[in-house]
Amino acid sequence: MECVVRPAQSTDCDHVMAMIREIAEYHNELDKVTINSQVLGADRFGGDPFYQCLVAELAPEQDNKQGHLISYVLFFFGYSVNTGRIVYLENLYVVSEFRGRGIGKKLLSEMAKAVLARGCSEMKFTVAAWNSQALAWYRHLGAQDKTEASDWHCFELGAEALRRLAGDGR
Amino acid sequence: MECVVRPAQSTDCDHVMAMIREIAEYHNELDKVTINSQVLGADRFGGDPFYQCLVAELAPEQDNKQGHLISYVLFFFGYSVNTGRIVYLENLYVVSEFRGRGIGKKLLSEMAKAVLARGCSEMKFTVAAWNSQALAWYRHLGAQDKTEASDWHCFELGAEALRRLAGDGR
Repeated sequence: MECVVRPAQSTDCDHVMAMIREIAEYHNELDKVTINSQVLGADRFGGDPFYQCLVAELAPEQDNKQGHLISYVLFFFGYSVNTGRIVYLENLYVVSEFRGRGIGKKLLSEMAKAVLARGCSEMKFTVAAWNSQALAWYRHLGAQDKTEASDWHCFELGAEALRRLAGDGR
Repeated sequence: MECVVRPAQSTDCDHVMAMIREIAEYHNELDKVTINSQVLGADRFGGDPFYQCLVAELAPEQDNKQGHLISYVLFFFGYSVNTGRIVYLENLYVVSEFRGRGIGKKLLSEMAKAVLARGCSEMKFTVAAWNSQALAWYRHLGAQDKTEASDWHCFELGAEALRRLAGDGR
């Protein structure tokens, strides 16, 4: 599959947002998507970036699909008190008709180059156990399931609880 | 407990690093700590910050312990493809003799104010299941255990696997 992997640009936000909605629909949680392409653009290209994004685009040779995005990887930099600089993989998506052709790995590979160059020594991420294909793939790439190995649990604290916490400190 | 919560400064790095080593020792994984206070300082105050940090310091009135740090919270900003801006809580620590006095909550409260002001609507974090006190406390604050509720698994991909991935894309 001839495709070009490059950093997302502000003009890609509509396409990336369409793919985000596709993946949410696949997970049957479209109602949980509260952002739109304007927000996605502002949060990356508005001068205070909250994430990084690479996209895969069909190679120009395939003229009728030139510039068509078929995959994205969204990630952000973070920190471990043990090992220092890390990267958190938020989401990797390949449009269904282009799966099984190495595109996801190509994106992850470009991401790995970029984050190693920034001094990161670890990638963290979360996978739902029902997504057995993803589980198997990430394990094959050398990832360790910390929930299985050490009983780590993923937690989320929502906006209401955050506001309550903020109020408690007054 | 009279203490002052404030953003960490570069001069705090030796103290924060000492607390990081304390917590690692408590978890019996001191051998996993590969950073030192110079790295910790450079990664926050070197012009390219990878994390944010608040510290709690004993109030100046308690003169013999003035400036003594007794707690820290380390976090970083990130992104959710569903809800946009989020914060990832990497670590919250209170020195053992000062626990049970609301210091951890005071730090989290100040953090909540700061991240709500930056537009974050969610805090994500990881807790080891053996740490039952932490589990209970975060649940009490309104956090949801996504591993229990939806079977989410936490994954890590180390430096060697990242380098292999980076090489595969050549």
